[in-house]
Amino acid sequence: MFNFDFYNPTRIVFGKDRLESIDKYVPVDATVLITYGSGSAKKSGLIDKVKAVLGNRKVYEFSGIEPNPCYETLVKAVEIVRSENINFLLAVGGGSVIDGTKFITLASYYKGDSRDLLKYGLAPIPFDVIEKAVPFGTVLTLPATGSEMNSGAVISYEHGKYAVMSELAFPTFSILDPTITFTLPKTQVANGVIDAFVHTTEQYLTFPVDGKVQDRIAEGILQTLIEIGETTVAEPENYDVRANHVWSATLALNGIVGAGVPQDWATHMIGHELTALFGIDHGQTLAIVLPALLEVRREQKRAKLLQYAERVWHIESGSEEEKVDLAIQKTREFFESLGAKTHLSQYGVGADKIPVVIEQLKAHGMIALSETQDITLDISQKILERAV
Amino acid sequence: MFNFDFYNPTRIVFGKDRLESIDKYVPVDATVLITYGSGSAKKSGLIDKVKAVLGNRKVYEFSGIEPNPCYETLVKAVEIVRSENINFLLAVGGGSVIDGTKFITLASYYKGDSRDLLKYGLAPIPFDVIEKAVPFGTVLTLPATGSEMNSGAVISYEHGKYAVMSELAFPTFSILDPTITFTLPKTQVANGVIDAFVHTTEQYLTFPVDGKVQDRIAEGILQTLIEIGETTVAEPENYDVRANHVWSATLALNGIVGAGVPQDWATHMIGHELTALFGIDHGQTLAIVLPALLEVRREQKRAKLLQYAERVWHIESGSEEEKVDLAIQKTREFFESLGAKTHLSQYGVGADKIPVVIEQLKAHGMIALSETQDITLDISQKILERAV
Repeated sequence: MFNFDFYNPTRIVFGKDRLESIDKYVPVDATVLITYGSGSAKKSGLIDKVKAVLGNRKVYEFSGIEPNPCYETLVKAVEIVRSENINFLLAVGGGSVIDGTKFITLASYYKGDSRDLLKYGLAPIPFDVIEKAVPFGTVLTLPATGSEMNSGAVISYEHGKYAVMSELAFPTFSILDPTITFTLPKTQVANGVIDAFVHTTEQYLTFPVDGKVQDRIAEGILQTLIEIGETTVAEPENYDVRANHVWSATLALNGIVGAGVPQDWATHMIGHELTALFGIDHGQTLAIVLPALLEVRREQKRAKLLQYAERVWHIESGSEEEKVDLAIQKTREFFESLGAKTHLSQYGVGADKIPVVIEQLKAHGMIALSETQDITLDISQKILERAV
Repeated sequence: MFNFDFYNPTRIVFGKDRLESIDKYVPVDATVLITYGSGSAKKSGLIDKVKAVLGNRKVYEFSGIEPNPCYETLVKAVEIVRSENINFLLAVGGGSVIDGTKFITLASYYKGDSRDLLKYGLAPIPFDVIEKAVPFGTVLTLPATGSEMNSGAVISYEHGKYAVMSELAFPTFSILDPTITFTLPKTQVANGVIDAFVHTTEQYLTFPVDGKVQDRIAEGILQTLIEIGETTVAEPENYDVRANHVWSATLALNGIVGAGVPQDWATHMIGHELTALFGIDHGQTLAIVLPALLEVRREQKRAKLLQYAERVWHIESGSEEEKVDLAIQKTREFFESLGAKTHLSQYGVGADKIPVVIEQLKAHGMIALSETQDITLDISQKILERAV
């Protein structure tokens, strides 16, 4: 097991009818900016319910944070935070709204050009760059990204997606009420399952370091997602199933799975370029890239792929090659069972577009991905060829 | 799944050679009281190493916190905190030292008779009773209780053991260096495995509420402890094995396993009386009580016992009764494989002593234990009879 640090101070308020807790955890004298997306939270009445709980606090709203939240949008909210002396942010939405709100909170006290904050990647922004941020809470509407219980965000700027990490970006609390997610479109629910699944595999399908309990937790999340995947899409109001979906997605990226073990974020990094270039939903890019990446990287990941085959998919017989083949096939079939397509060509993206993707990976410095930093652009190209 | 709140702000610093982090997380201007036990931390040189890292900070020491830390001892430390204006505590020890330090931190700002703090049991001490505590960190020397990453303590007073819970009692950080635990006596290592195992079963062997991911995490911890149990006792310097022991024990009681599921702390509560009356080590009382309790409660716990049999012990064949029997037998054998005795009579405690135990349970209000509050004194008596 590797040495590790684990720290996660976000308070989780989970279950039915938990919105009232907002009143407990937002300071009574706060001036609050509620941030949300394109309007479904408004139309459904959720924003009004949240405002009712906030009572006499001074409340502003900022809507229009888009999927893959854009720098240009977020800086407008930063201006409001500054001009209206906002001292608490409340994100009501899914990963994009929460990620965007993290950027707003970090940028609000930053004196320089806030595009600077996009340049640190997966390394935390140093405390001498930002030492203070606006505290914020979240009301989660989409179980997927885990952003409600971590300190990372992904921000879009021009044609790139940029990771932003800071301990100052942990939500102080997150309300996780599965019933709030009942009205989501089926595609978003499916994407959420895939996102949580791939977050888990990226911290698990690497090389063994004898992190026994981390492996078992990862396998437990994967097995849970497999068990509930089709039902959480097909039966949106099945509370128990959705509750397991929500909690698994949060646990998949709150630091517990990845503590002390190698991590391989190549699927996300390649996927980000596909979203930025072709507008393919984030979850769907992962469903395309992961099976292809596992094929190309089967030798480097052999030991963990065999463990995955046996413990997650209960594949008992066959040669090692056959077990690995079957595990990858079952992964692909699982994504497809949720309604996702797993080939680029199904989105009209052919092999002729691969050079453009490689160019963008190069432009964004993604030239040494994986748990061993040896996915060069050549290997990314092989993965993309396999994904067509 | 039940509604739940989860909050755990303790920072974990895990791995080899991590003591230097103390310098990062203890304020530079702190006046520190280092708390420890009967002297092994001093004799091994660990206290001196910790003091070296603390550098120029003003440092006091308080030694002599005993196993099952006593109120009378701890109030002496409270006097030092007050008289010397201590504003940071650093517990160097196992669960007893950390639990004792939690009591010290809570009692230090409490104006009344600090025995008041013993009366809240498993309910958190209200914030209007204590609103402030001295921040503290820990250096863990014994993987067992999970106290290094939770907000609970058990304090001994006269002939009772009293639970004390408060959000103010989370360590701000805990250093978990498995190599520090290499020199522990084998019995303490074994007790640590048993304690972590039983913490997990107490949040798992109850009744099903479809907490799929919580169940999988519990099963993962149990499987890990089973895998590493004998080796962590037999090969104290096997780093990977001990690292898995340490991290499993922390995760077993940091709130993740118990979030949203029923809990049955009866084994601990009955065990506490056995320690208080007969001086049997805490871990050993659990090895005695758990198998007996599972026998007596097999009907109430049937569904989870069958799941436990199948998923943890891989018992595939036989009738339901046979599976449950075998799972309980394997649990007992596991404890025995670590060198623990699983019968009261092996400690010279016969059936004639049961009325005394029942009297103490009654005196401490332990008249409605379990996940359904239906372990009456009559049922505790049956469990104890079975445990002789």
